[in-house]
Amino acid sequence: MKTSRALEYAQSRRANFLGQLRDFVRFPTVSSQPKHAQDLKKCALWLAQHLRQVGLDSVRIVPTPRHPLVYGEWKRAPDRPTVLIYGHYDVLPADPLDEWHSPPFEPTVRGEDLYGRGACDDKGQLFTHIKAVEAYLRTERALPVNVKCVFEGEEEIDSPNLAPLVARNKRALRANVALISDSRMLGPDRPAISYGQRGTLRLELEVRGPGQDLHSGNFGGAIHDPLQALCEIVAALHDRNGHVAIPGFYHQVRAWTDTERASMRRTGPSDAQILRDARAAKGWGERGYTLYERTTLRPALTVNSILGGYQGLGVKAVIPARALAKLSFRLVPDQDPGEVDRLFRRHIARLTPRSVRSEVRTLSSAKPALMNPHHPSMRAAVLAYRKGFGATPVFLRSGGSIPAVSIFQEFLGIPTVLMGLALPDDRIHAPNEKFHLPNFYKGIATSIWFLAAMGALRRSGVETREEDAEWSLAHDH
Amino acid sequence: MKTSRALEYAQSRRANFLGQLRDFVRFPTVSSQPKHAQDLKKCALWLAQHLRQVGLDSVRIVPTPRHPLVYGEWKRAPDRPTVLIYGHYDVLPADPLDEWHSPPFEPTVRGEDLYGRGACDDKGQLFTHIKAVEAYLRTERALPVNVKCVFEGEEEIDSPNLAPLVARNKRALRANVALISDSRMLGPDRPAISYGQRGTLRLELEVRGPGQDLHSGNFGGAIHDPLQALCEIVAALHDRNGHVAIPGFYHQVRAWTDTERASMRRTGPSDAQILRDARAAKGWGERGYTLYERTTLRPALTVNSILGGYQGLGVKAVIPARALAKLSFRLVPDQDPGEVDRLFRRHIARLTPRSVRSEVRTLSSAKPALMNPHHPSMRAAVLAYRKGFGATPVFLRSGGSIPAVSIFQEFLGIPTVLMGLALPDDRIHAPNEKFHLPNFYKGIATSIWFLAAMGALRRSGVETREEDAEWSLAHDH
Repeated sequence: MKTSRALEYAQSRRANFLGQLRDFVRFPTVSSQPKHAQDLKKCALWLAQHLRQVGLDSVRIVPTPRHPLVYGEWKRAPDRPTVLIYGHYDVLPADPLDEWHSPPFEPTVRGEDLYGRGACDDKGQLFTHIKAVEAYLRTERALPVNVKCVFEGEEEIDSPNLAPLVARNKRALRANVALISDSRMLGPDRPAISYGQRGTLRLELEVRGPGQDLHSGNFGGAIHDPLQALCEIVAALHDRNGHVAIPGFYHQVRAWTDTERASMRRTGPSDAQILRDARAAKGWGERGYTLYERTTLRPALTVNSILGGYQGLGVKAVIPARALAKLSFRLVPDQDPGEVDRLFRRHIARLTPRSVRSEVRTLSSAKPALMNPHHPSMRAAVLAYRKGFGATPVFLRSGGSIPAVSIFQEFLGIPTVLMGLALPDDRIHAPNEKFHLPNFYKGIATSIWFLAAMGALRRSGVETREEDAEWSLAHDH
Repeated sequence: MKTSRALEYAQSRRANFLGQLRDFVRFPTVSSQPKHAQDLKKCALWLAQHLRQVGLDSVRIVPTPRHPLVYGEWKRAPDRPTVLIYGHYDVLPADPLDEWHSPPFEPTVRGEDLYGRGACDDKGQLFTHIKAVEAYLRTERALPVNVKCVFEGEEEIDSPNLAPLVARNKRALRANVALISDSRMLGPDRPAISYGQRGTLRLELEVRGPGQDLHSGNFGGAIHDPLQALCEIVAALHDRNGHVAIPGFYHQVRAWTDTERASMRRTGPSDAQILRDARAAKGWGERGYTLYERTTLRPALTVNSILGGYQGLGVKAVIPARALAKLSFRLVPDQDPGEVDRLFRRHIARLTPRSVRSEVRTLSSAKPALMNPHHPSMRAAVLAYRKGFGATPVFLRSGGSIPAVSIFQEFLGIPTVLMGLALPDDRIHAPNEKFHLPNFYKGIATSIWFLAAMGALRRSGVETREEDAEWSLAHDH
């Protein structure tokens, strides 16, 4: 199928597309906050309606125990491969609100960027593929491949309902490859394809001491302060060299060849680049590894929040009854989240002094994933980027985790093309998140090219007969 | 002067007094929270009006840069000693609100206790002295001593304006002894006089890392997490034996004789009692000292709050740009807050790794204080307790800090009688604070007896001529 009319269509509709994206970003779809549940529902309705307008078939809103998933498909090319397009319409909380230069849910264009929570992660990026589909359907009345679109509302809470849903709908979701734009490029003219990602394990650690908050004058010196105890435990999770100090933690970490590491050094960001992105003066962590390696080849443990003691304005001299830390591991092949969970719990039990009690709660987990950069779909993506961005993408590993990637690998047996469109300075997860609009438009063109290139491939050896498998909506509550 | 009619008056007015105390507790006078500034003003007006009704002279509201102080006096007994009655009408925040069984500012009687924030600390306790003064003035039209009442609204924020105010009004505040009820008894029939208190030094420690919150997937392992760094620093503030690990911290700590310690062991609470009060299973701290000694003779450092990372509902996997801890030292003779501040800052600078930056901010400080238990006013207090409670008080040291005590010692050269009326289970500073009403009534009787006993003393060698010194209201902003 030719790309020219689709590309022209996309080119001429930029203002229109931007207006639609702004409507999309306006929904405050913060999946972690119950008060926004209705906003996610409304956004799902809007998105489903949009997919129908674009021309997708069988559009439906698939309920989950928490936030719905939006599905749409086009499978009228029985002799062509099927691309499973995944994205997420939920976003992270926008806090701290006072650091935003414009309100997070009032998407605002400044210069060449669209500012708003979710503008980049992931509404803007997933929207490029919807617009590519629209461009084909409006101009060619057909797509070069079959597509199945899965847009979930729970990625930022670690996709708790995606795995069971995919497991129960293996036939309906059968595809040759998944396509996800929810990762980073190296720079405006340096596209990147992520072929590996770290897994996650998120935990809460609570330390409890006295039965109530105590006056720190009356009891200070005689009762172990749970905040102090928590600090002592957390401090003992790393050694002086930046290694995670949990016995057995590195046992399953895969060692990489010098060749692999040399290749990574050539393609990956430099230490200086990573520090610039982080706006940090100095790096930290395991010696003998570059910062890029530390964030991709090597596992990590970060403290994401601590809460304890009086949090209001002013001073309150208490020994708090309890203190809470939220921690997340980033895991690499061949670490298993369940095994790390076990090691962590054993270590915490060992570290907890008898003057307090501790409790560990597991919040979520995702396995690490690794794709073959030589897969035909990867070559299609390289071609598409060259056309869309005028640059050859590099293959990178990613430090973050998109649970869908390992879920698709595990339950559908397919690789994922991680076609990143986010720039290092797009501040995903931070105040003043933005999407670089040239990347939005180039991303649409790249997607148009990618679908065409995939259409030109022979269908691979996977089962080819499309079945109208019904969605199984049963789920565990 | 006889006590009988005053005692009878107080006895017959209990219901009336309780109703007034409930009105007093109803003001949400949280001095640390700017939103309550008007409530403190209103409460000061109410209190001043109340002092006028009781019959005190020269009642005035003395402004400070933050919350006003209420003053009233009666000095029509030129040949008698002068007692400076101090208390504070401000209270701590009531958080966590959901742990209260009745709203903190809707004082509620359950059984023999009045529940409410400030019911005990310090509105209920200071009110006993107002009621004692009222009982004399209504029955005898005179007091057995001169009194000067100073009720401030900033004790729970460490009395930042009291020292300059007292320093500028030494003549107006001249007295022979100060009387403060803002400390604890050992039990309902075990009155106690606190003859020593620890000083304080409150500090904020901020650790700053990257220029913005970072995605912990993208950067975890390569950037030092400021929360982790904060934990590492805080963990290094104590050694394994519960000693504060700041070099030089103990150099000025006074060593006590075995006799003193043996006497303390006889009178002070047991380890078991302290653990029961704290609702803690195990003690903690410096070996070789009882829990009572650890909270009185020995200095302490507690972490009162930590704030860092995403604090909303749900999960946000960030490496936060900064983390903040609020800490307080409790200091003992002969430690100097300024010197400890200097040692702390030097230690933090030494502990801070180069991968982050740290900043220390001093919030407030108060010197430790120690009174002579053989002072004539102390003997008067012993007598008064015997009459009011039917029990001989023990002399105790207190772990907490009332800045007024060291301020009166330093600027007026007078000792303070700390006539505690709080019970160990009154939960001051915690949810469900209460005042034991029998202690309210016995406290009034004790105050009546104390004023009588003071009146029977010869005036000591201090300057006797009362002058109508004008209040100096100038203050630094």
